Amino acid sequence: METKARVLIDCHDAKGLVYKISRVFYDRDLNIDSNREFVDKENEKFFMRTVVTGKFEINELDAALREVAPKEAHIRVIVPKDKKVVILATKESHALGDILIRHAAGELGATIECVIANHETLRDLVGRFDIPFFYVPAEGLSREAHEAKVMEKINKHDFDYIVLAKYMRILTPSFVAAYPQQIINIHHSFLPAFIGANPYKQAYERGVKIIGATAHFVTDDLDEGPIIAQDVIPVNHRFDWKDMQRAGRDVEKVVLSRALNLVLNDRVFVNGNKTIVF
Amino acid sequence: METKARVLIDCHDAKGLVYKISRVFYDRDLNIDSNREFVDKENEKFFMRTVVTGKFEINELDAALREVAPKEAHIRVIVPKDKKVVILATKESHALGDILIRHAAGELGATIECVIANHETLRDLVGRFDIPFFYVPAEGLSREAHEAKVMEKINKHDFDYIVLAKYMRILTPSFVAAYPQQIINIHHSFLPAFIGANPYKQAYERGVKIIGATAHFVTDDLDEGPIIAQDVIPVNHRFDWKDMQRAGRDVEKVVLSRALNLVLNDRVFVNGNKTIVF
Amino acid sequence: METKARVLIDCHDAKGLVYKISRVFYDRDLNIDSNREFVDKENEKFFMRTVVTGKFEINELDAALREVAPKEAHIRVIVPKDKKVVILATKESHALGDILIRHAAGELGATIECVIANHETLRDLVGRFDIPFFYVPAEGLSREAHEAKVMEKINKHDFDYIVLAKYMRILTPSFVAAYPQQIINIHHSFLPAFIGANPYKQAYERGVKIIGATAHFVTDDLDEGPIIAQDVIPVNHRFDWKDMQRAGRDVEKVVLSRALNLVLNDRVFVNGNKTIVF
Amino acid sequence: METKARVLIDCHDAKGLVYKISRVFYDRDLNIDSNREFVDKENEKFFMRTVVTGKFEINELDAALREVAPKEAHIRVIVPKDKKVVILATKESHALGDILIRHAAGELGATIECVIANHETLRDLVGRFDIPFFYVPAEGLSREAHEAKVMEKINKHDFDYIVLAKYMRILTPSFVAAYPQQIINIHHSFLPAFIGANPYKQAYERGVKIIGATAHFVTDDLDEGPIIAQDVIPVNHRFDWKDMQRAGRDVEKVVLSRALNLVLNDRVFVNGNKTIVF
Repeated sequence: METKARVLIDCHDAKGLVYKISRVFYDRDLNIDSNREFVDKENEKFFMRTVVTGKFEINELDAALREVAPKEAHIRVIVPKDKKVVILATKESHALGDILIRHAAGELGATIECVIANHETLRDLVGRFDIPFFYVPAEGLSREAHEAKVMEKINKHDFDYIVLAKYMRILTPSFVAAYPQQIINIHHSFLPAFIGANPYKQAYERGVKIIGATAHFVTDDLDEGPIIAQDVIPVNHRFDWKDMQRAGRDVEKVVLSRALNLVLNDRVFVNGNKTIVF
Repeated sequence: METKARVLIDCHDAKGLVYKISRVFYDRDLNIDSNREFVDKENEKFFMRTVVTGKFEINELDAALREVAPKEAHIRVIVPKDKKVVILATKESHALGDILIRHAAGELGATIECVIANHETLRDLVGRFDIPFFYVPAEGLSREAHEAKVMEKINKHDFDYIVLAKYMRILTPSFVAAYPQQIINIHHSFLPAFIGANPYKQAYERGVKIIGATAHFVTDDLDEGPIIAQDVIPVNHRFDWKDMQRAGRDVEKVVLSRALNLVLNDRVFVNGNKTIVF
Repeated sequence: METKARVLIDCHDAKGLVYKISRVFYDRDLNIDSNREFVDKENEKFFMRTVVTGKFEINELDAALREVAPKEAHIRVIVPKDKKVVILATKESHALGDILIRHAAGELGATIECVIANHETLRDLVGRFDIPFFYVPAEGLSREAHEAKVMEKINKHDFDYIVLAKYMRILTPSFVAAYPQQIINIHHSFLPAFIGANPYKQAYERGVKIIGATAHFVTDDLDEGPIIAQDVIPVNHRFDWKDMQRAGRDVEKVVLSRALNLVLNDRVFVNGNKTIVF
Repeated sequence: METKARVLIDCHDAKGLVYKISRVFYDRDLNIDSNREFVDKENEKFFMRTVVTGKFEINELDAALREVAPKEAHIRVIVPKDKKVVILATKESHALGDILIRHAAGELGATIECVIANHETLRDLVGRFDIPFFYVPAEGLSREAHEAKVMEKINKHDFDYIVLAKYMRILTPSFVAAYPQQIINIHHSFLPAFIGANPYKQAYERGVKIIGATAHFVTDDLDEGPIIAQDVIPVNHRFDWKDMQRAGRDVEKVVLSRALNLVLNDRVFVNGNKTIVF
C-alpha cells in the first residue's frame, strides 16, 4: 500500500545533499509530491522538506537518510496525522473560540487535549465543546508555584504543542525550557513594536496608522522568540485603544490559526531566532 | 439623565443643511460626540451621521429635525442597543462559528434569534450555544415553496437583519423584496470578480495571485448588491482550489463580521447600488 | 466669481462649535462640498476641515470664523494652490525619483524649489529635471556647521515644507525647531519597530515576516514625530537584508508620496504626537 | 573561475527527475545556492529552478541536463546579466517613470533599448534620460497598419521583453503571436474584475471598497493572459473615479515593477494560462 510522508532535514550545508537525499527516494521508487530547500548561507545551514509517496518503511527510510546526511543532521520522517495540543488561556475568547470552531469542524489538524486557564471565564465556552477545562488560579501563588500546578495538568496529557491562546501571563525560563520549540504564542502587536504589556495602549499613544499581531515560538526572552506569522490592519485617529484592541482581535485569531496550521503541517523549521516556513 | 443617540439623515443636498441640523442640536444643548457628512455630488444627495449626548426626548428631537430637513429626508434617531438578527446557513461553519463566538462573548452587538439551515449539519454547533436551530430542507421543493417555509420561520421572529452566513442558495426577487436593505450576504470572492458558483474554482482556473471576500446587501441581482466591506489575501501557484477555499474562509468570516459590526452600529447608508460607510 | 477654500479649525472642544461655524458659512450662502470633524475627548480638542465654495472674501471669512471660535483657535482659510517644497536627500534615488516623476507630470501638487544633498550622487538625476541641485558636503564639518550651510541654502527659498527623501543624517533639535511641523521624513521601517540605524538589518536579524515604512513629521526625538502614513509588505526567510532593503524601497516611496499628498492637500492636523488625517 | 547560472527546467513529471538533475550538478561539483520545484499534478508537469555556482561550461551542462531530462523538456541555463527591454507607452508617465528611475539607478536589471509611443506626450520625459523615443501615431491608420509601423521599430532592436507601460491600445492576435511570452502588460484593475475599458470608472460605479492592478503576460485574449503579480489598495465612498485612478497609479507602477523584477530574474514559468513564480 502507498504511504505518504513528510521528510524534514536540517543540517550543516554540504555539497551534494540534494543529490544524496533524492537518490534515497529514487532508489526506493518514491514519488516526490513537493520539495523545497533553503540554504542559510550566513550560518551555512541546509533545510529541506519533501513530501514523498510510495511503498516504504518509515524506519528503513529514516535509517537510509541518516546514512547519507551529515552526522548532526536533524531528520524527521512524519506520516501526516492529527497532532495533539494543549491550550492555555486567560479570559479572552476570540483566539480560543476560533480554534474551537475549527476543531469542531474537523479543520484544525489537531485534537485539543484540554484547555487550562487561570480564570473561570472560559469554562462555559470550552464546556460547550465537550473539551476538558482546568481552572488553575494564580492568586496567592508565586509564579513558580502556579506554573508547577499548570505543568502538572499539562504533563498528564500526551501533546505535541502548547498553544497560548491569549494566555496573559509571563512564563518563567524553566517552564519554557521544559517544552523547547513546543510553545506557540500570539502576541497582540506587530513585533518587535510594542513589546510587553498592553501593546494596544502603546500603539494608541504612539499614534500608529497600522496595528498587527505576531505568532511566535516562545523562548526565554519575553516576546523575542522565532516569528512564525504576522499580519496587520489599518487604524486611524478615530480609534481609541479599546477600538484598536477590538479591531486587533481579528488579526490575532487569524494569525494564530495560520501559524498553527503551518506548524501542525510540519512546515516550520526553527533556525536560531528565526523560522524557515515552507 | 443623559441620553446618547445616533442621528442618521439622508436627503437631497441643499444649502444650509449642516447649519440647520446642528442648530437643532445646539438649541437643545446637546454635545456632538462625532459627526460625519458626505455629499454625493453626482446624484446631489446628502448623508450625515452624528452622535449626540444630552437631555432630550427622542420623539421631540426627531420632529425638530424633520422640520428643518427636506420633506423627503430619511431621518433616524437611534438609541444604541443590541439589534436582533436571524441567520441563514447551509453546511459550512466558519462564518457562523465566528458570529456564535462573538455572540457568546457579548461582542456581537446583536442577539441571534435563530439559525435556519437547509441542511442538518450545523444543528449540533448551534445547539452548543443554546440558540434555536430550524432545519428547512429544500429537497423536492420548488425554490418558491422552500422560501415560503423559510419565511414562515423568519417571520415568527422579531429581527432587524437577516445574515446569510454562507447560505448557498439563490434567493428569489420576491424573497429579497420582502426584506429591503435587511439581508447581508458574504460572497466568497472579491466581487465583481468570479460572480456565481464556485468562485474559488474560477479563481484557481484563472491563476490569480490574490483572492478575496465581499460582504454586501442583497438585492435582486445575484451578487450585485451594495458592497459593505471587502478584503483579500495572497495566494500562489501552490494553492489548488481547495487550498484557496480553506485560505479564503478566514477572509470570509472576518469580512462578514466587519460588515455586521458596521451595520449593527448604524454606520452604513445605502446609496443606490453603493454604500456610504461612516 | 465662485471661490473654493479649505477651512481648517482646531481648538479646545466646546458646545455649539459646528453650529456656530456652519452658521458663518450659511450666512454667506456658501456651499459645503465636504466636511469632517473629530473630537479628541481625552484632550478635549476639536478638529474640523470643511471645503466651501461660493462668493466670499478670504479675510472677511477668516475674521468671521475667529469671532465665533474660541480665542486660542488655530484657523486657516486656504485657497487651494500648489505648495512649495525643498527636498533634502543623500544618495538613494527611489523616493526622490518618485517625487520628480510626479512633479514632471504635474501631479505632485507642489513645485520643487531645489534639492539639497550631502553627496554628489543625485546631481545628475535632479539635473535631468531642470531643478536646482545644491551639494553641501558634511565631511570635516561638525553637525551644526553642516546644518548651518544647509539652512543657508534652504532659507534662500520660499517654501511650505521640507521633505527628507531618504536624507540619511540626524537633525539637531535647533534645526528641527526652526521649521516646526514643516519637516516630513520617510523612515524605512514600520515605526516604532526598528528605530535608528539600518532598520532592514535589524528586521532581518529579528526574522520578521513583514516590513514597512513610516512617513512622519520630524520633531526633536529621532523617529518619534507624529505619524502621517504607514504601509507594509510581506517578506520571508529567503530575503537577506539587502533584499529587504530593495523590497522596502517601493513601500518607502509610496508611503512618502501618500503622506505628501495628504499634507499638500491640507488634510493633516498635528495633535500632540499624533496626526488627524481627514 | 567560478560561474553562477540559473537552471530552469520544465517538462512532463516523471519519477527521479530531482535525483537525475541533482546528480548532474553533483558530478560537476557544483554548489546549489537555491532550488525550488513544483509539480502541477492536474497536468502532470514538473518545474524546477536551481541556482548553481562552480566551474562549468554552459553548453556542456546544458547537454548533460538534456540527456537526463525527458525529450520534450524545456531547459535553460542562464548566466545572470541585464536583459534588454523595449517599452510601449501612450500618455501616462507613472509606470514608465518608475521604470526610468530604476534604470537610471542601475536597479532595473535591464537596459531600456527604446520607448515607443502613440502620442508625443512622453517624449520630453524619455529624452531627459537619454533613451531613444519613437513616436508612432495611430491616427488615420488601421490597427494592422499602425502595428506594422510599431513592429518595424521594435524589430530594429535586440530585446528580451516588450513592456506595455500603460500602452492603451489593444493588440492584434498576430502582433501578440509574434512575441510569445515576451509581452508584459499592466492592467489597471484586479483582474478578472473590470476587464476592458476604463476599469476605474467601472470600479467606481460598482462601489467597490478595494481596487487593484494586475501584471500579466499578453496572450490573444484581451486581459486574459497568465497573471504574474497583483496587488490592491483600499478605497471608499469619498473616491470618485478620478481619485481611484490617482490612487491606483501607485499600485500599477509597483505591481508592474515587481512583475518585471521577477521576469528579469528568470523566476517566472508560464504554465498554460497561469504562472509559476519561484
